[in-house]
Amino acid sequence: MIQMTLIQIDNYGPWTVTPRPRNESDLQILQAELYADLQRQIAMKKGLVFYTRFDNLLAITNGLNHEDHLRIQRSIKNRYPFTISMGVGAAETPHEAQKKATMALQKEGGAQSSERKQILAVDSLVDPEDSFVQVAHIDINSVTETLTDIESAFDTNFMVNKAQHYLMTKLIKKGALLFFIGGDNFMAPCNGLSEQEIEDILVEINDEIEIGLKAGIGRGRNAEDAAYMADLGLEEIRDHNNDMWTYVIEKEY
Amino acid sequence: MIQMTLIQIDNYGPWTVTPRPRNESDLQILQAELYADLQRQIAMKKGLVFYTRFDNLLAITNGLNHEDHLRIQRSIKNRYPFTISMGVGAAETPHEAQKKATMALQKEGGAQSSERKQILAVDSLVDPEDSFVQVAHIDINSVTETLTDIESAFDTNFMVNKAQHYLMTKLIKKGALLFFIGGDNFMAPCNGLSEQEIEDILVEINDEIEIGLKAGIGRGRNAEDAAYMADLGLEEIRDHNNDMWTYVIEKEY
Amino acid sequence: MIQMTLIQIDNYGPWTVTPRPRNESDLQILQAELYADLQRQIAMKKGLVFYTRFDNLLAITNGLNHEDHLRIQRSIKNRYPFTISMGVGAAETPHEAQKKATMALQKEGGAQSSERKQILAVDSLVDPEDSFVQVAHIDINSVTETLTDIESAFDTNFMVNKAQHYLMTKLIKKGALLFFIGGDNFMAPCNGLSEQEIEDILVEINDEIEIGLKAGIGRGRNAEDAAYMADLGLEEIRDHNNDMWTYVIEKEY
Amino acid sequence: MIQMTLIQIDNYGPWTVTPRPRNESDLQILQAELYADLQRQIAMKKGLVFYTRFDNLLAITNGLNHEDHLRIQRSIKNRYPFTISMGVGAAETPHEAQKKATMALQKEGGAQSSERKQILAVDSLVDPEDSFVQVAHIDINSVTETLTDIESAFDTNFMVNKAQHYLMTKLIKKGALLFFIGGDNFMAPCNGLSEQEIEDILVEINDEIEIGLKAGIGRGRNAEDAAYMADLGLEEIRDHNNDMWTYVIEKEY
Repeated sequence: MIQMTLIQIDNYGPWTVTPRPRNESDLQILQAELYADLQRQIAMKKGLVFYTRFDNLLAITNGLNHEDHLRIQRSIKNRYPFTISMGVGAAETPHEAQKKATMALQKEGGAQSSERKQILAVDSLVDPEDSFVQVAHIDINSVTETLTDIESAFDTNFMVNKAQHYLMTKLIKKGALLFFIGGDNFMAPCNGLSEQEIEDILVEINDEIEIGLKAGIGRGRNAEDAAYMADLGLEEIRDHNNDMWTYVIEKEY
Repeated sequence: MIQMTLIQIDNYGPWTVTPRPRNESDLQILQAELYADLQRQIAMKKGLVFYTRFDNLLAITNGLNHEDHLRIQRSIKNRYPFTISMGVGAAETPHEAQKKATMALQKEGGAQSSERKQILAVDSLVDPEDSFVQVAHIDINSVTETLTDIESAFDTNFMVNKAQHYLMTKLIKKGALLFFIGGDNFMAPCNGLSEQEIEDILVEINDEIEIGLKAGIGRGRNAEDAAYMADLGLEEIRDHNNDMWTYVIEKEY
Repeated sequence: MIQMTLIQIDNYGPWTVTPRPRNESDLQILQAELYADLQRQIAMKKGLVFYTRFDNLLAITNGLNHEDHLRIQRSIKNRYPFTISMGVGAAETPHEAQKKATMALQKEGGAQSSERKQILAVDSLVDPEDSFVQVAHIDINSVTETLTDIESAFDTNFMVNKAQHYLMTKLIKKGALLFFIGGDNFMAPCNGLSEQEIEDILVEINDEIEIGLKAGIGRGRNAEDAAYMADLGLEEIRDHNNDMWTYVIEKEY
Repeated sequence: MIQMTLIQIDNYGPWTVTPRPRNESDLQILQAELYADLQRQIAMKKGLVFYTRFDNLLAITNGLNHEDHLRIQRSIKNRYPFTISMGVGAAETPHEAQKKATMALQKEGGAQSSERKQILAVDSLVDPEDSFVQVAHIDINSVTETLTDIESAFDTNFMVNKAQHYLMTKLIKKGALLFFIGGDNFMAPCNGLSEQEIEDILVEINDEIEIGLKAGIGRGRNAEDAAYMADLGLEEIRDHNNDMWTYVIEKEY
C-alpha cells in the first residue's frame, strides 16, 4: 500500500493579495523555499514530496507517522508567515490514496476558509508490513541532442510540457499520478501498474506525438528506495542504448 | 522591447548520475533553492525568473546589464556544486527574445559539454529608453470552489495542467510564452499581443475545454512593474465578479 | 552520557581564496545556509547544532546513529561546493565528548589536507538507555530595557559578547561548553554540573562585571527535549520576576 | 563617510515564547536564514551585513538609499512570520554611524513594543561623493596548525572567542567595530583608524594573550570593494610568510 499526504497552505490565495497584491518575486521565492523545506523534512524519513501546485503539494509518505506530520506543521508555523494543513490517506493505488487524503482534509473546511488552520486530517496510515511503493522515473530519449541544443529554450519546454500532459492523461486513467521533476524528467507513483501497462503508454505516446520516452521502474518499502531503484533502472536502459522501453528493479532488504 | 535571459546549469544531466544517481530529494531541494536564489538576485533589479525546467530557466531581464549577469554567475559558482551559463537576447516579442538568447548560448557549446563552463553569451541588451514589458497574469475563475474544495488534489492539478497546455499551445503561435507560477496562476510574457487577441484565446479555451480563465494585463518598463500592474488588473476583474475576460493597466512613471 | 559531533568543512580555508578571494557576502550566505541546513537535518532526529565557528560546528547528537551521520554527509555533498567530515564522541561531560570527537577526526588527517574528504570518524556512540543531556539556557536579565533600548547596537553587542566570554571561561573549567544562540541567549551543554555550580558561576559574573544572568536548566534523553525543558525553566524564573538564579526541569517520559 | 544600518526584528523576544517557547532548532534555522537572506539583498547593492546578535544586525550600507531599505523590509514581511525595523546613520567612524542609526530607531519605540512595526528611521545617508569605507580583515596566524588540528574543537573556539573579545575591547575605544565572520576571521569596519593604530592593537594582543594576528586593510567606496581589498591585503601578508602585521590596499576606480 502507498501512503500519500496532501499539504495545503491555509488560506493562501487571499493572503497573497491582502492588503494588496504581494510582489510576485517574493511569492515565487516563498513557494520554492517552502517546497525545498518540506522536501528536506520529509526526505529525512525517506518520503518524497512533489511541488504539484506549490500551494497544494502531494507527497509519498510511507514511513511517516502522525507525530512526524505534526512536527513538520509546527516547524513551518514557526518560520513562515502562514500555516499548513495536511490530509493523509493510504490505498492500493496512488490516485486512491491522494483522493482519501484530499477528502479527509476537505471535511475539515475549505482551503480558503479563514477558520481552518493547521489541521491534520488522517484518513489512514500504512502499516510498516504493508508498506510498498512503486514509482516510474520517466525521461525523454536524447533530449539534449534532439531538443535542448537545437530548439529554443521555450520550444523545448513546450515539448516537455506536451509529453507531461499526454503522460498525465493516460496515467490518471490507470490510478497512477505524474509529476514533473525538472529537466526532461517525470516521476509517476504507480502502485498496481504492470510493466506492460507502462510500456503500452510509452508506445502510444511515441505513436501519437513522436516523443520517445523510457521508464526506470523501482519498487521498495518507501519512496526513497523506490525512486533510487527507478534511477538504477533508467541507467540500465541507457547502458543498453535506449533499446528497451522499461526496466524494473525491486529493492532487496 | 523585451530582454530575456536563458540560464542553464552546465553539464547538469551527467552530474546528477555521477558516479551513481544522486538522491532525488537532494536534487529537488537543490533545484528549488537555485531557483529561489536566482529569483532573489534578479528581483533586486526588477527582473523576474520562471522555473521553466529547473535546469533551464527563462527570465525577463530588462534592467540587468552585462555586469549584473556576471555577478549572478559568480555568486552561484561560489555556493553551488556546479556553474551556470547564460544567453541574453532582446526582441519585439518574448519568443523571439528567448530564441536569440538560446542561440547565442548554443553557439558556445552544448548543455552537456564538459568544456563549456560559466559562459555569458549576449546577443543583445535592451536600451533603457526602449525597455518595455507586457505580461498577462492569468488565473482560473473560482478554482477553490469548483476544483480545490471538491475534486481530489491530483485531479485539480490535472485540470490546471490541462489549462496550461492549451494556453501554451495557443500563445506560442503568437510569439508569447507561458509559465505556471503556482496555484491556478500563469504568467504570460506577451509583448506585441493585443488585449483582443488575449481575450480570443481565453474564449477559445472556455469553448474547447470549459475552463473559465481571466487575464490581468500589465505594462511597464520592467518585469516587476508589469507583473504588479497585471495583478492590479486581475483585482479589477474580481471586483467586477469576473464578468470581463481581461483588464489592462499601464504603469505611469 | 552525552554524544557530540564535530562537523568540519573539508579544506575550507584554501577553498575560500582559490583562485582568488571569494566574495565575502557569498561566503557569509554559504556558511549561514550550511548551518541552517545541518540544523534542519539534525533536528529531525532531536539533536541540536551550534554554529560555533561556521566551518567547524559542534552538535549534540544523542539519537543519531552511524547511518544518520552518513546520510547528512551525502546530502551536503550533493548540494554544496564542498564536502564535510565528522567526528563523533560520547562521554560523561560535553567537553570530554567533543574532545573525543575532535581527536577521532584529527587522526584521519588535517582540516586543510586536500586528501581528507568526507570522513566519518566515530570514537563512540551513546546507547539509547544511557542517553542523557543537560543544557542550561542562559539569558541576560531585562536586556531590552537596560541595553537594547538605551545603548547603541554595538555597545549592547559588546556587553553580550563580554558575558559570553566570562561564561565560557568559567564553564570550560567545569567540563561544560557555551554557545551564543542569538539575542541575549546562550546555551550551555553541561552534563555533570550541579544546579549550585551553575548558580555560583552566575553569581560570580554578576559580582565581577555586573551583568545579571539567569539559567533555565533542562534534562532529557536528547538535546531537543533538554532544550525545551530549559526554556520552560526560564519561563518559570520570569514568572517569578527573575528572583531566582536557576530553575531545573527534567523531562518525564 | 560610512553609512550603517541597524536591522531589528520587531518584538522578537516575546514572539519566541508565545504562546509557549518555540522549538530552539526552528529559531536557529529562522535566524540563520534571515541573515543569509538580508546578506543576499544587501550584497546586491555592494553592502555587507554582520549577523551581530541575529535579532539585531548591523550592516555597512554605503550605496543603499531610502527605497532600497524599504524594498528589503517589504520582502521580509512577505516571507517571514515577523517584520523588521531599520535605523540608518552616516558618520566619520563606524561607531558613531551605528549609534546614530540606533538612536534614530530607538526614538520610534522599543524593540519589544507591540506597536512599533516595520519602521524605517533614517538619521542620515552618505552622499555618493563622500562614500568611503575602510575595513580590516583580521585572522589568526596559522590557526589550523596551532589550534584546529591539535586542540579540541571547543578549545579552539574558545581561543578564537578570546581573541574576539580582546579585539572588540580595544577597537571600540577607537570608534571601530568588530564582527566574527567564521573560522578564525574577523572583520573590523574602521574608518578613521590609521594602519599604525591597527598594528599597535595587534601587537598588544600578541603581548597580552599570545595570539598572533594579522590584518589586511581595504579601502573603497563601498563595503564590498573595501572587503575585497582587505582580502587581497591578507593574501599579501601570507605571501610574505606573515612577517608583517598589516597591509593596506586602496581600490582604484
